[in-house]
Amino acid sequence: MSDAIDLAEKLRQFDDLWSPRVIAEMNDVQFKLAKIRGTFVWHDHAETDEVFFVVNGSMAIEFRDRAPVRLQAGQLFVVPKGVEHRPVAEEECHILLVEPRGVVNTGAADSELQAENDVWI
Amino acid sequence: MSDAIDLAEKLRQFDDLWSPRVIAEMNDVQFKLAKIRGTFVWHDHAETDEVFFVVNGSMAIEFRDRAPVRLQAGQLFVVPKGVEHRPVAEEECHILLVEPRGVVNTGAADSELQAENDVWI
Repeated sequence: MSDAIDLAEKLRQFDDLWSPRVIAEMNDVQFKLAKIRGTFVWHDHAETDEVFFVVNGSMAIEFRDRAPVRLQAGQLFVVPKGVEHRPVAEEECHILLVEPRGVVNTGAADSELQAENDVWI
Repeated sequence: MSDAIDLAEKLRQFDDLWSPRVIAEMNDVQFKLAKIRGTFVWHDHAETDEVFFVVNGSMAIEFRDRAPVRLQAGQLFVVPKGVEHRPVAEEECHILLVEPRGVVNTGAADSELQAENDVWI
């Protein structure tokens, strides 16, 4: 077994945006840190819900048919599976994503923002 | 879909110790807030890993065969399935547990600390 996993210490280990890093796994569920800024691509995850938890800063999650969900540090939101969404952050924001192993950040969308998957720090 | 889930706001809704409240669900995985103080009962979860994330305060997780893992706010730890452990907090500590729906807080241990399961706030 490893030691405590410190989110702030892990966040200091990378700077690139929209590139989730895995920091822990519970059964087949991964905990991934990401730094985001700007507007992501519209996408969905057909097979799974996805949790966004804001660690530092603030962000919004836009949807096709409802008002955006605005999230600040200490707040989380579960995007249901199959629901198209688009994360947006005006300033750099640090988030913890929780979702099953194997989820691609851009879903099935064809985007240059697709990140390498399953990268641990 | 609901709105953002605010951990601090949810924590203001209950005061009892060692009684996890469900605040969100991702697929079959539940996110539960708990307030703890004192020493829990030795137990394990035979079927699943369990994530402890400290929101406020500090705690330790004791093990039978290794040094305790000490956790502060912003730190998490994954207790592997089947590993006996005992949470301890000298001062009141607020934690977010992440584990599959149906996990009983005391595992198979016979304890008066067993909490009602699946209680949402």
